[in-house]
Amino acid sequence: MVNICILGGGFIGRFYADSLIGRRGKDQVKVVYARKEETALRFAKDYNVPHTTTDMEAAITHPETDIVVIALPNYVHEEAVMLCVKHKKPVLCTKPLGRNAEEALRMTLACEEAGVFGGYLEDLCYTPKFLKSVKSVESGAIGRVLWAKSRETHPGPHSDWFWDIEKAGGGAILDLGCHCVEISRNFIGKAVLPVEVMCWADTQVKPIDAEDHAIGLVKYENGAIGQFEVSWTFRGGMDLRDEVMGTEGTIWINSFLRTGFEMFTSGAGNDYVAEKAESSSGWQFPVGDEAHELGYPNMFNDMFDAFEKGVQPRETFYDGYVVNAIIDAAYKSAKTKLWEPVQLPVWRGKRGLIKPSVYQEHDALHWFIKEEILPNGDRKLILKNKETGEIVMR
Amino acid sequence: MVNICILGGGFIGRFYADSLIGRRGKDQVKVVYARKEETALRFAKDYNVPHTTTDMEAAITHPETDIVVIALPNYVHEEAVMLCVKHKKPVLCTKPLGRNAEEALRMTLACEEAGVFGGYLEDLCYTPKFLKSVKSVESGAIGRVLWAKSRETHPGPHSDWFWDIEKAGGGAILDLGCHCVEISRNFIGKAVLPVEVMCWADTQVKPIDAEDHAIGLVKYENGAIGQFEVSWTFRGGMDLRDEVMGTEGTIWINSFLRTGFEMFTSGAGNDYVAEKAESSSGWQFPVGDEAHELGYPNMFNDMFDAFEKGVQPRETFYDGYVVNAIIDAAYKSAKTKLWEPVQLPVWRGKRGLIKPSVYQEHDALHWFIKEEILPNGDRKLILKNKETGEIVMR
Amino acid sequence: MVNICILGGGFIGRFYADSLIGRRGKDQVKVVYARKEETALRFAKDYNVPHTTTDMEAAITHPETDIVVIALPNYVHEEAVMLCVKHKKPVLCTKPLGRNAEEALRMTLACEEAGVFGGYLEDLCYTPKFLKSVKSVESGAIGRVLWAKSRETHPGPHSDWFWDIEKAGGGAILDLGCHCVEISRNFIGKAVLPVEVMCWADTQVKPIDAEDHAIGLVKYENGAIGQFEVSWTFRGGMDLRDEVMGTEGTIWINSFLRTGFEMFTSGAGNDYVAEKAESSSGWQFPVGDEAHELGYPNMFNDMFDAFEKGVQPRETFYDGYVVNAIIDAAYKSAKTKLWEPVQLPVWRGKRGLIKPSVYQEHDALHWFIKEEILPNGDRKLILKNKETGEIVMR
Amino acid sequence: MVNICILGGGFIGRFYADSLIGRRGKDQVKVVYARKEETALRFAKDYNVPHTTTDMEAAITHPETDIVVIALPNYVHEEAVMLCVKHKKPVLCTKPLGRNAEEALRMTLACEEAGVFGGYLEDLCYTPKFLKSVKSVESGAIGRVLWAKSRETHPGPHSDWFWDIEKAGGGAILDLGCHCVEISRNFIGKAVLPVEVMCWADTQVKPIDAEDHAIGLVKYENGAIGQFEVSWTFRGGMDLRDEVMGTEGTIWINSFLRTGFEMFTSGAGNDYVAEKAESSSGWQFPVGDEAHELGYPNMFNDMFDAFEKGVQPRETFYDGYVVNAIIDAAYKSAKTKLWEPVQLPVWRGKRGLIKPSVYQEHDALHWFIKEEILPNGDRKLILKNKETGEIVMR
Repeated sequence: MVNICILGGGFIGRFYADSLIGRRGKDQVKVVYARKEETALRFAKDYNVPHTTTDMEAAITHPETDIVVIALPNYVHEEAVMLCVKHKKPVLCTKPLGRNAEEALRMTLACEEAGVFGGYLEDLCYTPKFLKSVKSVESGAIGRVLWAKSRETHPGPHSDWFWDIEKAGGGAILDLGCHCVEISRNFIGKAVLPVEVMCWADTQVKPIDAEDHAIGLVKYENGAIGQFEVSWTFRGGMDLRDEVMGTEGTIWINSFLRTGFEMFTSGAGNDYVAEKAESSSGWQFPVGDEAHELGYPNMFNDMFDAFEKGVQPRETFYDGYVVNAIIDAAYKSAKTKLWEPVQLPVWRGKRGLIKPSVYQEHDALHWFIKEEILPNGDRKLILKNKETGEIVMR
Repeated sequence: MVNICILGGGFIGRFYADSLIGRRGKDQVKVVYARKEETALRFAKDYNVPHTTTDMEAAITHPETDIVVIALPNYVHEEAVMLCVKHKKPVLCTKPLGRNAEEALRMTLACEEAGVFGGYLEDLCYTPKFLKSVKSVESGAIGRVLWAKSRETHPGPHSDWFWDIEKAGGGAILDLGCHCVEISRNFIGKAVLPVEVMCWADTQVKPIDAEDHAIGLVKYENGAIGQFEVSWTFRGGMDLRDEVMGTEGTIWINSFLRTGFEMFTSGAGNDYVAEKAESSSGWQFPVGDEAHELGYPNMFNDMFDAFEKGVQPRETFYDGYVVNAIIDAAYKSAKTKLWEPVQLPVWRGKRGLIKPSVYQEHDALHWFIKEEILPNGDRKLILKNKETGEIVMR
Repeated sequence: MVNICILGGGFIGRFYADSLIGRRGKDQVKVVYARKEETALRFAKDYNVPHTTTDMEAAITHPETDIVVIALPNYVHEEAVMLCVKHKKPVLCTKPLGRNAEEALRMTLACEEAGVFGGYLEDLCYTPKFLKSVKSVESGAIGRVLWAKSRETHPGPHSDWFWDIEKAGGGAILDLGCHCVEISRNFIGKAVLPVEVMCWADTQVKPIDAEDHAIGLVKYENGAIGQFEVSWTFRGGMDLRDEVMGTEGTIWINSFLRTGFEMFTSGAGNDYVAEKAESSSGWQFPVGDEAHELGYPNMFNDMFDAFEKGVQPRETFYDGYVVNAIIDAAYKSAKTKLWEPVQLPVWRGKRGLIKPSVYQEHDALHWFIKEEILPNGDRKLILKNKETGEIVMR
Repeated sequence: MVNICILGGGFIGRFYADSLIGRRGKDQVKVVYARKEETALRFAKDYNVPHTTTDMEAAITHPETDIVVIALPNYVHEEAVMLCVKHKKPVLCTKPLGRNAEEALRMTLACEEAGVFGGYLEDLCYTPKFLKSVKSVESGAIGRVLWAKSRETHPGPHSDWFWDIEKAGGGAILDLGCHCVEISRNFIGKAVLPVEVMCWADTQVKPIDAEDHAIGLVKYENGAIGQFEVSWTFRGGMDLRDEVMGTEGTIWINSFLRTGFEMFTSGAGNDYVAEKAESSSGWQFPVGDEAHELGYPNMFNDMFDAFEKGVQPRETFYDGYVVNAIIDAAYKSAKTKLWEPVQLPVWRGKRGLIKPSVYQEHDALHWFIKEEILPNGDRKLILKNKETGEIVMR
């Protein structure tokens, strides 16, 4: 079992606490730090946490702190991680790891050099549906992955600092795209080099300096393509969907708005429906166990298991750094309007992969293109002559 | 934390163990009993259980047994419960509690008289979607419940004894209907008396003595109606759906076959898809975390929390007995073709409820029937004259 | 091409007209009759109909009337049909054919004896999904049909007379159940004798004399079971679903509320969404082409084609009479609480069908019960010994 | 009524004929031309067409030809249109209009100069769901359109010439993207200038010279963004989905693979399921009336109505030319890897539109950003100080 110190008593800290307690788990939240005392006290009361403080370093060095969970705004991640490194405390950091790859790489290397355990709290790479999908992909069920898209859109984040580009480090791309990018990486393969990024980003609705809507494409060395669609302007709730195309199959995951749970209400009663739901009458789409569907319990199980076993968790600081590097390229592309190379001063995956051949033999003279049955029952076989390139139909 | 003894190393025992371990829980399976030694040994190896035995009483009385979980065929439930009573061991029993209400009532009273904690392992009343739905109903979101249907159909159970009417005590009604009946009871209100049951049952496909398909209606004292649809002849996987109609709203839950997770595969790879899935190529509908979607972890959390706090769990032996009584009436009805009264020698809920009035005043002279906007934009108001009964349209 | 006379300018008459015009069809509405002149005139204006009248017989005998379409309240069907018979005019009658089987049989026989073409306007047996499903069933895609359920529920009908039991002849069973019963008959086979009916019906919400909610089971001679679920108390729109279980497959049809068309709106704009939709903000579920999805154009195509070819349409007055007979038994059952035999003084289908055998041979000694792969990869085969009846598992 | 001449007896010609006959329509196919006589004869027999020919000009000039429908491979469109122009015959051309904008513009101008009626057969802009969606958008139901995505992917086209880049003029972008581009244009507004395009395209699976997978972004002058996703490598059937985000709402359309019609079959029976379905056992997703769901009947109704009334149809040759111009930019972008300007030598829409302001006043001092209710019931209001730009939370 581990004793946990949570840094940050806001929305995400509370979501973490919801996932850590009430499930008869052996791990316990022992210390909470918040900037404001009232936040810390409220948190401590709600989640039955024995120790509170408004001094971050005191929280980290508290004798009952086995492991530190950073649930702070983006601009404080590096400071908090460095304090953990200083005191050799194992540390888990919420997403995104840094505001940019430079910050993220410094955190990653600092932990590694100090021998400090670091876990990247990328919850959406731990949802039950996602874990099972990745297993299916790894077992070959959909063949070679050609395209992996992830979409996260909703009507905008909860806290003020998200909307401040200096504190957040970016807008919807950094806030939501970090999930999407890592989801695609998992499907395509973490060892496959992300090569370059094209990104459209705009501020369409909100009076802010950062983007509130963006779409990006990430080209991988093996020819696979990742895609992210993110927005803070979506209407109708929180849309979390992944789609994967492979040579042998397809995966469609809807993680939030359509999960087999539908309710119509005239508005009588009136209770909380789901994160970022926009109305409390008419058709509603609640989520059974939100924390679980969003991956939190699985994520912490993996983190603590890995910590106790002395192995790496599924999502590491290094992964967070790669994600930041891809997002850096996206931001650059949104400005230059060019495909921007992903800058990875440190890369531990494969190099030199190439796109597999598209040629599949049908017979000595022909490559296979397609076979199909038409509505009228006809069967069509389409081939390409190896010599002449001519397309023939049989 | 509690140390658990599982009686039964088969399908359901394994599902229970899957839910109890691997989630960093503080509870542990310490003892397993199975009829055959090889089953017990395999179970112990797979789930890392320190003690095995083929002697049921020895398992129950084992010093490391804090609480006993019965995962045995129906015909052994009473014997196992009585052994727990004899040794004053807290006991949780899988569904259905008895093969009939007589058995179930004996178990219920024996536990109560001996002061032994008894929990009814009705997992489908603990699924995340179900718990949230019941909370919405209790908050009034759908008004007064008029009808609560639950459907469980699949291509038939896994183990031989299910197909033996003597050992199982019945067919699809007892095996699946026990879930459905208790789901409806929860929506309608556990304190509301189930009055009578009408049931159609038949053996349409399987060469067995019990029914493989049945539909039943359960009338409650407050005018609400429960419905169950059960079958061992369904094709396409495991269909688990609940539907509730209330005066102010509607709930639709799909717990298994359509949960926002879809996969197409040409058949490459070829791995386990989901419980009772029927094919491994084409469109598949996996479930993210099966155990969680089926309610197991929530169920055990409630049971152990209640046990430790000395309170009743959500689902008790008494509930199991009421369910058995409703099912007994269903079996009788299937034979007599009559609405059969539910025989409840012990009833602890309300009595004397009546159906609420259907009269809602519109104005001094009229009852309100309906208001609607038609496609051409016309608004229609339909009323009933309080005196004459005449229907008028405005 | 045919010249059409529509009797009735209300909701259903307008829906028919919407389906008959605007599709570059060769058939034309030439005459409209309504009780009130203003209704007839508005109808004529909206649908460009040259002749209007408030005299039903004049409408029927109008020289431009090739075929009469009855879109009148239930209590006027017989009178209207008899006028058509008197004047030997081909006639199509909306559903239900009669208020009871007696009326329906009189209409059926009167037409037949007079050699007058009669078509039963059972639109939901003409929806594109339904027609394709029936074709699949007939091709054997789901094997032998075991159960065919149809559900129609919504917040109640549009016109005053529906709510008057004398004029309507009944409540939700007659209004909606007539669809459901005929849908089941089509799936099970129209030649299969409906034997007996069990029905629960109640007035749960509306201050009316008829039932506003009912559930019924219809037993067929070959062992198949039909089911209808109808209500005027449903909240959330119009729920139209069919489900069929066969020995080799399953069919699920959602005809209205979930058809792959979803819209969220804050309420800006504010236009008509769909028949019986209950709100104009939040998540909406419009239907692409309502008339087509509800079967109207296919229905009229079949009727007019059959009329011109001198053959029977898919749905005849005789079918309407069988439906009425089943509904009569349902009403009786709702009162007597018994399975009531279906009274069919005239029956033209098969007699003497029996339920097929459930015995499928596995080997010389055993009947086959089931084969399944478990989550841990084990394969289980369950058989029954032909001699001893013992269930064995391999 | 119109007498129709169809040029081309292949897959698309047959789909057109299926939509034109059998619905009691007043229009008739009188002439069919095909390159091979056997194709023409088979077509004539199947669809009861009186005249066949293998001479295209003879078909066009046939005395019974009122209007010509071009259902030929892309490389023959211009030749066929020019023959119609030569003989002043009204002409409808399948999509895409040209292999590129140059061809398309020549056809457009030739028709206009000769006063020949030209209709662009963009069926997917006529599906029932699409037409109703566009109406909702026009009524303001989702506010200002921010993003309009259309996706069409399937396992590849039926005929040999599609796979020959010379004959087809391109690959998946031209074949499928032409639909997607025009769908987005309709949602965003046809008068809004498409400014520039970014496109990724690759040949990932098929041994062909053209692309088999592509994703493109189209920037419009008013700040809206169009997106297309097209592929010939998708597994699982034909995926046709549109998604629109507006400031006040969202639209999701699934036109083919998930339309409320689901069937499981063990493989018994074995009939045609749906266009480009990939298996005939397991879970199937048939479409009720394919032609109607794909927009064909609505499209021809609009074309013939417009022709008879002497007005423009919804989709004109000019629209086809704009689509080609956008696709030309996409192809260029896929090569240059730059955002490529859309070259529109002729543009008849608006010019000089700008992106609407993102500033919405909350009070004298602040711009409004967001208001939300959190799971714990807290209400948060997020504002931006007009002077300082500071983000504040209340």
